[in-house]
Amino acid sequence: MSGTSLDGVDVALIKITGNGINTRLKQIGFITYPFPKGLNSFIKQNAEYLGGNVTNICQLNFLISHIYVDSIIALCQKIKFPLSKVDLIGSHGQTIHHLPKKEKLFGYNFGSTLQLGDPSVIAKLIGIPVIGDFRVADVALYGQGAPFVPYFDYIMLRSNKNRALLNIGGISNITILSKDGNLDDVIAFDCGPGNMLIDFLMKKFFNKEFDDKGKIALSGKVTDYLLKKIIKKDSFLFQEPPKSSGREFYGKNFLSSLLKSHSSIPKEDWLATITNYTAYAIYKNFQLFSPIKIEELIVSGGGAKNRAILKSLRNYFGKNVKVNIFKHKSFCSDAKEAVCFAVLANETINGNTANIPNVTGALRKTILGKICPP
Amino acid sequence: MSGTSLDGVDVALIKITGNGINTRLKQIGFITYPFPKGLNSFIKQNAEYLGGNVTNICQLNFLISHIYVDSIIALCQKIKFPLSKVDLIGSHGQTIHHLPKKEKLFGYNFGSTLQLGDPSVIAKLIGIPVIGDFRVADVALYGQGAPFVPYFDYIMLRSNKNRALLNIGGISNITILSKDGNLDDVIAFDCGPGNMLIDFLMKKFFNKEFDDKGKIALSGKVTDYLLKKIIKKDSFLFQEPPKSSGREFYGKNFLSSLLKSHSSIPKEDWLATITNYTAYAIYKNFQLFSPIKIEELIVSGGGAKNRAILKSLRNYFGKNVKVNIFKHKSFCSDAKEAVCFAVLANETINGNTANIPNVTGALRKTILGKICPP
Repeated sequence: MSGTSLDGVDVALIKITGNGINTRLKQIGFITYPFPKGLNSFIKQNAEYLGGNVTNICQLNFLISHIYVDSIIALCQKIKFPLSKVDLIGSHGQTIHHLPKKEKLFGYNFGSTLQLGDPSVIAKLIGIPVIGDFRVADVALYGQGAPFVPYFDYIMLRSNKNRALLNIGGISNITILSKDGNLDDVIAFDCGPGNMLIDFLMKKFFNKEFDDKGKIALSGKVTDYLLKKIIKKDSFLFQEPPKSSGREFYGKNFLSSLLKSHSSIPKEDWLATITNYTAYAIYKNFQLFSPIKIEELIVSGGGAKNRAILKSLRNYFGKNVKVNIFKHKSFCSDAKEAVCFAVLANETINGNTANIPNVTGALRKTILGKICPP
Repeated sequence: MSGTSLDGVDVALIKITGNGINTRLKQIGFITYPFPKGLNSFIKQNAEYLGGNVTNICQLNFLISHIYVDSIIALCQKIKFPLSKVDLIGSHGQTIHHLPKKEKLFGYNFGSTLQLGDPSVIAKLIGIPVIGDFRVADVALYGQGAPFVPYFDYIMLRSNKNRALLNIGGISNITILSKDGNLDDVIAFDCGPGNMLIDFLMKKFFNKEFDDKGKIALSGKVTDYLLKKIIKKDSFLFQEPPKSSGREFYGKNFLSSLLKSHSSIPKEDWLATITNYTAYAIYKNFQLFSPIKIEELIVSGGGAKNRAILKSLRNYFGKNVKVNIFKHKSFCSDAKEAVCFAVLANETINGNTANIPNVTGALRKTILGKICPP
C-alpha cells in the first residue's frame, strides 16, 4: 500500500494460514519502495479538492500500478524469494480522493472515494491474482470506507488489557479494543491529521519531506494562541464517528489563511505547534468518543518515529496510560498497514466480510475488494 | 454499457448457456435508459484532454454506478423479471479517457484508459456479482484495449460469406470475418468518428442531441473542399491497426479551427459534409487495411438509423457490397454492444480469454475484467 503521506510503497510479503479469527501470519520481508522523484507533488496536484485533470488521473492509475509491480519485484529480489511462489497480492491503492459524506448530484445522494493503481493492471503486468480497491465497497454501502485496520487489530491484536492502537500515517486513526469485547464492540475512527500537516510545513519551510525524529518540532516552542486558532479551524475534530478524513480537508488549504496572518511566528515554533496539535487532535478525539478507559496506547506508522508527537501524546494522555511504540512478534511496526491489506485480501478470497459497520457506518457487513485474474 | 455517444445506458438481459464458441444466447429484454438531464455535458467536461478534475471524477465514478443500477432495475420492472433471478452482471462502464498509445511518464512507458461506473459499487448496491472494467486488462498488456466486439462477432456471427460488421456508436469500429478464418484471423479496428462529430455539430448548430434519421444531413449539400480539409486533419485515418480512438481525438477541439475559418458554410451543408466524412473514414479504413474483399457490410449501432450515413456508405462501397442493417434472431441490433459485454462477462466467469491480440495489439491473450462480489 501507499498512504496519504505519499512517501512511497510499503510492500510486505507474508506467509498466511487460516482466515478470520484463526488467521496466523508471519512476515517474510518488508520494504518501503520510494516513489520516483516528483511523483509526490504530481499526485498531490491531482488529489486536491477540484484539482487535477482526467488525463493525469487516467495515466496515474496505470503509472502507480507499474510502480507497485516494481516494488513487489524489488522486495522479492532483495530477500531472494521467487515471484512465482507468491499466491496472491492485496493492494490498497493510492487514495487521491475521499468524499464519504453524502452529497446530492443529479438527484442521487451518495459518498465516493477514489484509489488509483488499478489492481487489474498489477495482475496483468506481474502475472499474479490481485485483490484491490477495498474502500469503494464500504462507501457504496454508505459507509466511510475507513478505517479498515480495526478489523485486523481485532483479529490479530486483542489482549487481556483495554488498549488503543494508534496509527499515524498521513491521517491518524485509532482502534479501541476492550479486553472482553467482540468484533461488533470495536470502536475506531480517523482522529485528524497524522503527519500530513507536519509534512506540509516541513516542505514549505525547510524543503524536506518530513520532520526526522521530530527534531525541528522539539527545537521550537508551542505557541498557545496559534494552537487555539488551529483547533477552532478544525471542524473534523468534534465530528462524531463514524468519520474519516484525508487530503481534501487537511490539504494545502487547511493552514493557508493562518500561515498568512501568523507569518511572524518562527518556523520551528510553527512545527512545534502543529506537532502538538496533531497529538491534541488524537487525544481530544479519544476523550470525546472512546466509551472506555485504556491502560495502553500503542503507536505505529511513520509518526511513531516522531519523538515530539510521542512526547505530546504522553503529556495529553497522562501517567495512567502507557504510550508505547507498536511491536509484534510476527511482523514489524512499519509493515502493519501493508500486512493488514494482505490479510484483507486473504479474507476476501476466503469469502469473509471485513468491514465493521459500527466503525465505518456502512449499511451492512460486506466482502471487500475486486478480484483481478492474472 | 454506455458508449462514447453519451446518450444513456444500454441494458440487455440475456439467457446464456455454454461459453466460447459454444455460447448460445437469447435476449429477454432490452432498454436504453436515459441519462439524467445535463449529465451528458458534465461527463464531456470531465472527458476532454486535460479537462475535468479529481472531485468530479471521484463522484462520477459512483454516480454512474447508481444510474446503472437504476437502469437494471428499470429493465427488470418493465419486463417483470425478478431481480433475484439475475445471476451475473457484465458492465463496460463509461469511458472518459482512452490513451492506449505508449507515453513516457516518470521513466515508465505505457498507455492507459479510464472507465467510470465502479463495478464494485454496482455489485454492492444491487446485490448481484458484477464483472466490469474489461479494457484496462488489455491496455495493461500494451494493447489498444479495443475493440472487443470482434470476439463476440467471431463466436456469434461467423457465416459462409466474407462479411464486415460495422458498429457506429460515438466512434465507429469494424470487424472483418472471412468465411473460413479462425479467431486469430479476425481483423478489426476503430475506423474513425461514428456519431461523435455529427452529434457535436447537431448540438452546436441546432441544440439537438443527434441528427434524427440523418434528415438534416440529407437536406444539405456535401462541400467538397471542406471534406478534403477534414480528411487532411485526420491523422487517425491513415494510422495502421491495431488502433482505437475516442473523445480525446474527436472531441470538441477536432473541428474548432475549421469551424472558425468556414463559418459561412450553411449549417445543413456542414452536417451533410461531416456525415459524408464519417462514411468516408469507414470506407477508407476498410480499403487501406482489410486483407479481403467482402460481400456484405452489416451496420449496427445508433448510426445505423442515420439514412445519410447509409447512403454515403453505399456510394463509397459500390454495388458489389451489400450494405445491410444488422439483424439477428437472438437479439436486436440496438442491443448488440450490451449483449457483447454480457457475453464477455460470461467468458471471464468461465475463465476464458476474450481479447484478440491480432486485433488489440496486446502482448498476449488474457482474461478480461474484475470480479466484484455482491
